[in-house]
Amino acid sequence: MTTAIDTERWARAWLSRVVEPGQRVVAELIDAVGPVELVHKIRAGDVPSALRRATTVRSLDDRVEVDLALAAEHDVRLLIPGDPDWPDLALHPCVVATAARKPDLAPPIALWVRGRSDLIPLFERAVAVIGARAATPYGEHCATDLAFGLAERGWTVVSGGAYGIDRAAHRGAVAAGGPTAAFLASGLDAPYPRGNTALFRQIAEAGALISEWPVGTTPQRLRFLARNRLIAAVSAGTVVVEAAARSGTSNTANQADKLGRVVMAVPGATTSAMSVGTHHLIREKDARLVTRVDEVLEDIGRFGDDLAPPRRAPARKRDLLDPLARQVLEGLPARGSATPEEIAAQAAVLPGDVLRALPVLELEDLVERRADGWSLRRGAR
Amino acid sequence: MTTAIDTERWARAWLSRVVEPGQRVVAELIDAVGPVELVHKIRAGDVPSALRRATTVRSLDDRVEVDLALAAEHDVRLLIPGDPDWPDLALHPCVVATAARKPDLAPPIALWVRGRSDLIPLFERAVAVIGARAATPYGEHCATDLAFGLAERGWTVVSGGAYGIDRAAHRGAVAAGGPTAAFLASGLDAPYPRGNTALFRQIAEAGALISEWPVGTTPQRLRFLARNRLIAAVSAGTVVVEAAARSGTSNTANQADKLGRVVMAVPGATTSAMSVGTHHLIREKDARLVTRVDEVLEDIGRFGDDLAPPRRAPARKRDLLDPLARQVLEGLPARGSATPEEIAAQAAVLPGDVLRALPVLELEDLVERRADGWSLRRGAR
Repeated sequence: MTTAIDTERWARAWLSRVVEPGQRVVAELIDAVGPVELVHKIRAGDVPSALRRATTVRSLDDRVEVDLALAAEHDVRLLIPGDPDWPDLALHPCVVATAARKPDLAPPIALWVRGRSDLIPLFERAVAVIGARAATPYGEHCATDLAFGLAERGWTVVSGGAYGIDRAAHRGAVAAGGPTAAFLASGLDAPYPRGNTALFRQIAEAGALISEWPVGTTPQRLRFLARNRLIAAVSAGTVVVEAAARSGTSNTANQADKLGRVVMAVPGATTSAMSVGTHHLIREKDARLVTRVDEVLEDIGRFGDDLAPPRRAPARKRDLLDPLARQVLEGLPARGSATPEEIAAQAAVLPGDVLRALPVLELEDLVERRADGWSLRRGAR
Repeated sequence: MTTAIDTERWARAWLSRVVEPGQRVVAELIDAVGPVELVHKIRAGDVPSALRRATTVRSLDDRVEVDLALAAEHDVRLLIPGDPDWPDLALHPCVVATAARKPDLAPPIALWVRGRSDLIPLFERAVAVIGARAATPYGEHCATDLAFGLAERGWTVVSGGAYGIDRAAHRGAVAAGGPTAAFLASGLDAPYPRGNTALFRQIAEAGALISEWPVGTTPQRLRFLARNRLIAAVSAGTVVVEAAARSGTSNTANQADKLGRVVMAVPGATTSAMSVGTHHLIREKDARLVTRVDEVLEDIGRFGDDLAPPRRAPARKRDLLDPLARQVLEGLPARGSATPEEIAAQAAVLPGDVLRALPVLELEDLVERRADGWSLRRGAR
């Protein structure tokens, strides 16, 4: 007795094992045909060749029932888009970046979660604190201190659950009694690294462990890179505390920048190899230098009132839009927000057209996504 | 048997004792009536009231003969504008800033010098390395290291001869066998602080000790501030290695910025009070973060080829000039440089008009000062 929703849930669970996350081509296929039809296409080999090659072997297996049962054993739940707890707004930068045809930043197909299920409030005010595994005592001190201060002020500290800076950040948040979330590149039955098992238990109690991969998945280099985009996406800003030259941390900072998120870096002694990466971010990548919590909050525009002036879009942008996008734009209310369905009704177009046009309009700074729907940006009124 | 030149030398020696340096009003009076006539005016009380009040008592004395004799005893020479060794080009930012009516940045009336007399080549490639007196071992290490590397590559290290960072910078340059120059706020008969006496001897051998004040002058807080402008002016860029919050070092950095010179700062641990000032400069004042010599040279545009793209001035700037300035602009050659006299002849105006118009044109980015005269900037051709 499989309902439509159950079918989609089953399909996304299947895809989360068969397809590596983050790929723009997969996001576009899901947008075009939906997850259920995509499963059929992958099984039939009816997908672009790179995706076909990557999925041929994996698609022979059907482990969804096993995965779900094993997940339940480990208190791990499957969240999919449309679920009441799906953090739609927090993941929205992935939708925008993918609409802008940026590669490898697609929104997750599904999330496996252990701990708190209310991810929407968890990521409403979130800052990432990340950095090197081979951190120095100085770096760990900075990470703990920043995370403690952020948690004290009600911010969720997001990190990657690794040794070094990540661990120090999670610990600082836990010490302050604040929530913290770890995005992992392994299945949640055996969170990696094993040496942080006690910490993972604390994170699951205070916040959430989250993975795009089903139970039984081992971490791999490319999975860490894909995972990094989610840390950057759900956080208003990403603070890099220590990083060696050309490190994985720089990759997260780079993704945060591509996702339109603020990148910050903590300076250190010029004699420390673990500060070479943060100095590089400040000097060459326009990362903001931060030394304390106040500066972090100032840089993400949340220190007292929002200090960042509202961006304005020149009126002539409307003239460059295609007719459908212009029509959808007309469907937005002059003040307040509207849901895609309301906009479709106002603009007299199909809901699917609205969903396709909104990211384009957002890229042009004409509309913005809010908690309760979509609204015109000031410059577009 | 006093010649015209001797009279001017005498007048500037007198002014260097009676008038505190850096004042725009004094620079304007010297431009208008010359130093000899200014001495008469000060003695007669015929100057603006603030200047009159400041000079009434001092102007009763005439110590020029004594000052010159005592200077000679200490191997200190008097340099004045027009002398072959006067570092005209190095001090030019003071002329431009004063023409722009910025206060307290006027060029020196005279310089008292011990050590090398050839100040023009000394400041042809100069970088300032400055910072806190109460430096940490880390800061002193950074200063010595940077200064050593700069000196090795033929750059003169300029600083203020103080304890802490300044001393470490001079020492690094001396250790590399390179030239270094110290601008002091005291008379050169008794360079301050006395604890650096051995270092001052080395600086005078490897480069020069320079002061705007005659022998017998004691340092005062305002003199340090006035002195700072010369450190900033003669250096293509100023590197701040360590500074406490709201320190004198920030004043030098501020002056370097006003003088159109590059400001750089070395980061440190966020836990160090001595790095609060440098982090502030990077975060709030757009100072460039530097960690090594290559980065310093890159930032002053002298790393390999000049990496900084030439600035361009929009053609319409010409239309905003007054008629005389436009006429002077016409007198500059299409390629290469010309002296003010050559420009006056070409433009058919008086040499004095050319001297008045050139700083205005420079402020508009239309002309630039070179070693062999003045030339049109690319955008002005």
